[in-house]
Amino acid sequence: MRVLFLGDIVGRPGREAVAGEMRRLREELALDVALANAENASGGLGLKPDEARRLLDSGLDVLTSGNHIWKYREIQDYMPRTTRLLRPANYPQGAPGSGLGVYSAGGGVSYAVLNLQGRTYMEALECPFRTADALLAQVPEDVRVILVDFHAEATSEKIAMAYHLAGRVSAVLGTHTHVQTSDARILRDAHGQGHTAALTDLGMCGPEESILGMEAAPILSRFLTGMPTRFRVAGGAVLLEGALLRIDEGTGRAQSIEIFRRRLI
Amino acid sequence: MRVLFLGDIVGRPGREAVAGEMRRLREELALDVALANAENASGGLGLKPDEARRLLDSGLDVLTSGNHIWKYREIQDYMPRTTRLLRPANYPQGAPGSGLGVYSAGGGVSYAVLNLQGRTYMEALECPFRTADALLAQVPEDVRVILVDFHAEATSEKIAMAYHLAGRVSAVLGTHTHVQTSDARILRDAHGQGHTAALTDLGMCGPEESILGMEAAPILSRFLTGMPTRFRVAGGAVLLEGALLRIDEGTGRAQSIEIFRRRLI
Amino acid sequence: MRVLFLGDIVGRPGREAVAGEMRRLREELALDVALANAENASGGLGLKPDEARRLLDSGLDVLTSGNHIWKYREIQDYMPRTTRLLRPANYPQGAPGSGLGVYSAGGGVSYAVLNLQGRTYMEALECPFRTADALLAQVPEDVRVILVDFHAEATSEKIAMAYHLAGRVSAVLGTHTHVQTSDARILRDAHGQGHTAALTDLGMCGPEESILGMEAAPILSRFLTGMPTRFRVAGGAVLLEGALLRIDEGTGRAQSIEIFRRRLI
Amino acid sequence: MRVLFLGDIVGRPGREAVAGEMRRLREELALDVALANAENASGGLGLKPDEARRLLDSGLDVLTSGNHIWKYREIQDYMPRTTRLLRPANYPQGAPGSGLGVYSAGGGVSYAVLNLQGRTYMEALECPFRTADALLAQVPEDVRVILVDFHAEATSEKIAMAYHLAGRVSAVLGTHTHVQTSDARILRDAHGQGHTAALTDLGMCGPEESILGMEAAPILSRFLTGMPTRFRVAGGAVLLEGALLRIDEGTGRAQSIEIFRRRLI
Ligand SMILES: [Fe+2]
Ligand SMILES: [Fe+2]
Ligand SMILES: [Fe+2]
Ligand SMILES: [Fe+2]
Ligand SMILES: [Fe+2]
Ligand SMILES: [Fe+2]
Ligand SMILES: [Fe+2]
Ligand SMILES: [Fe+2]
Repeated sequence: MRVLFLGDIVGRPGREAVAGEMRRLREELALDVALANAENASGGLGLKPDEARRLLDSGLDVLTSGNHIWKYREIQDYMPRTTRLLRPANYPQGAPGSGLGVYSAGGGVSYAVLNLQGRTYMEALECPFRTADALLAQVPEDVRVILVDFHAEATSEKIAMAYHLAGRVSAVLGTHTHVQTSDARILRDAHGQGHTAALTDLGMCGPEESILGMEAAPILSRFLTGMPTRFRVAGGAVLLEGALLRIDEGTGRAQSIEIFRRRLI
Repeated sequence: MRVLFLGDIVGRPGREAVAGEMRRLREELALDVALANAENASGGLGLKPDEARRLLDSGLDVLTSGNHIWKYREIQDYMPRTTRLLRPANYPQGAPGSGLGVYSAGGGVSYAVLNLQGRTYMEALECPFRTADALLAQVPEDVRVILVDFHAEATSEKIAMAYHLAGRVSAVLGTHTHVQTSDARILRDAHGQGHTAALTDLGMCGPEESILGMEAAPILSRFLTGMPTRFRVAGGAVLLEGALLRIDEGTGRAQSIEIFRRRLI
Repeated sequence: MRVLFLGDIVGRPGREAVAGEMRRLREELALDVALANAENASGGLGLKPDEARRLLDSGLDVLTSGNHIWKYREIQDYMPRTTRLLRPANYPQGAPGSGLGVYSAGGGVSYAVLNLQGRTYMEALECPFRTADALLAQVPEDVRVILVDFHAEATSEKIAMAYHLAGRVSAVLGTHTHVQTSDARILRDAHGQGHTAALTDLGMCGPEESILGMEAAPILSRFLTGMPTRFRVAGGAVLLEGALLRIDEGTGRAQSIEIFRRRLI
Repeated sequence: MRVLFLGDIVGRPGREAVAGEMRRLREELALDVALANAENASGGLGLKPDEARRLLDSGLDVLTSGNHIWKYREIQDYMPRTTRLLRPANYPQGAPGSGLGVYSAGGGVSYAVLNLQGRTYMEALECPFRTADALLAQVPEDVRVILVDFHAEATSEKIAMAYHLAGRVSAVLGTHTHVQTSDARILRDAHGQGHTAALTDLGMCGPEESILGMEAAPILSRFLTGMPTRFRVAGGAVLLEGALLRIDEGTGRAQSIEIFRRRLI
């Protein structure tokens, strides 16, 4: 099974680039599954339901998210009405929506997507490690392909999650920092056999000349003056970043992972 | 001028790998200058003066550092006695040592190294952006090659620094997260000409099967239980990570930057 | 029922002052129950089992604790062997010890003590609000007197807990900041009747001329230089700080709360 | 000289209570100087220029502020046009306004007010300790009465500042936590003579039944669910909190400090 998982989509440039390319990418890369984190898709922060729908219509199978997903109040109503938009599973019980979904990839192959959020340098949530344990126990046994988006800041927590889930899921892919890391690798299971693809951060889909997709000047000004500034989504060429995976459908083992990066002008 | 800048050296495995390879790397890569961040070189946290000396003797020209450099008290005495070990320049006035050095690369070419530390999710220091401005004003005008190690956690602060210094220094290279990023690029100066190489994080020189160079199990246990554990440097194959730069000596412009990653068994 | 709850005991001066005064205080104040937070009782950070025993022998009924309790490894073995030393209940499942105890005050009166820890500006733990709900459901119905030590940094989180538990427990008393607040009051239950005594922080039992019980100079030096210094317990006159409560045994309602502060030379 | 310094004024209830009482308080307490922190005076967060003017017209001599002062953009234009509204002095150079003012108390007595902000658990600013040193050197020698508002979160940083300035200023009074502490005391100068009044936090002027002046329910909901909620200023009885100081005009020594707390229905 061939999977493309894209990093945080930022603003209109990110959304339009992803939506505009998705059909072509599915074909060119022979994708069975295409996923993206969409927590920044609306205005650089948050996700409006309409824009979630348009992303899903464009050829993405499932959207994941993170700490910024709650920005627009409407998303709380939308979440329970779709299974194709996940939020981090370790928000407290009672939060709208779900952090785990099981989907069909066609040809009788099912796969699960699990969305989690870190706690180091981030807000207090339930333990992502224990939440992962609890939710993996709920995945039907015949669903072997399991893809995890761990939305977290600290590299230590992200790599710790990869080791925690090594041998139990197909991939642990980080999001949230908007900067793609170069450490794609496959971790071994308890028997020493390669199983779980890991990448500390997928990067983002958004304007290249920017700070995390936003215009540099207001952010620099904030660092220099300590005073609030209004952030704006940047313009110019757009980067699509993520990871491309091949996964054995029978066992759920990752066969390969490589970083994906494409520049659109 | 050809420069190799290596990410945080972790523990004995990192130290021995770097020291053992340095002569060969200088030759193979035709390096004019070789640098590394050494804040974790002793036991995974801190730097003992003897081990700093041995790294410098092995072929590294200058060592930079970061928040962990103060772990061994002796380093405070050592710092004022060498110009070849820098600490972040934005520690308060009166801190031992210096964050800026000017060196000779041979053949009459000088270069400066500037070490800074971030403040987002880190301890309170002087403003790294303003410190950079002040110190760059002190670099002699005929020193055109300027290399910056920005030791910081948050991707936003690191990229902001790259834009802040774009056109004014040869390279802004991040350290501290121990995970190499894939975003090597060259930022333009005010005239739109490529000038400043930037990479959000150089990565590390240390054990590959690890969490930031340390054994995974105690760190995972800490995340799972919230209780302190003793961290240990990991074993096994060692990764050497950093960036390889070509810089025009006459102008200080970066001509190319590529990530460097080598696995030693 | 008359209760004295003392704030964080700091180091030998705090320990000796508390132990030396406890019998006298029990008599003078006609105490039925005397409690203290002991997370800093050994050397200013942590608690050795022997010193816990001596505090309990001196006339304290129960010790609570907080984030610093794990400093000495031996405490993990001691905790399961006593019911009279609590740790915050919202450490993850599997942590040694317990955060809830039910005790007899003599004369057939039982009382419960619940120890919780905050998460704002502190390490990631389980949700203290939900943990409180779950544990209060376990307190036998005939135990009406329930005393809560909420070990937390942020005033917002501490007052939020007081409102969360208003009408359900006899008192919500803060610890951790080592500075006593002046806001002792009694919050109403759902029927508008006064029920739950609240104080944002009990203060500490330790040297008065100090920063949180520790010598001022090394701490000031750390703020000024950003470099690690070794903290030492201060000397001189000792403050005993806490709160004095009167609680109706039949209903568990707090009848009064006043801050307690005594200076020993 | 008799001084009243009030803690953070919260929203309309706080503003109206302070403005409504100020003339009466000046008379009743025979005040020479009345000051308040006003960072939360407009809607619970920020300060509108018109509302600053009205507070100053009501009988307050000078307003101090803190991290929330920048919420309304207009305040940046207002600040340079008045000397009677201070912002923390350790915002970076170039920030609008000033953190130090010298004023006349009538009868030929001058006094200075210095506003600083902490960095522990707060945003990165210039060092408040060194900024204090630099600014105190600018106070004319014949101005002996110096009042400091240190707007900070951590008790350790606040008490450290009091020791840092002991013997050099008349008072170091904390703000920001909105909870009044009970530790009013007078610290000694280098000759062992009582000089500097210190209180870790002045508390607030705002609704009593609240969390830091705001309605409890939305804040509790946020702690319980992790999801953003809209905070609203609470209603009901208002507390006025602060400290009352007597200061020797000739030497600048504090002669007494006591907490001030008044409940208005
Ligand atoms: Fe994001
Ligand atoms: Fe995020
Ligand atoms: Fe490091
Ligand atoms: Fe570091
Ligand atoms: Fe404590
Ligand atoms: Fe504590
Ligand atoms: Fe405030
Ligand atoms: Fe504030």
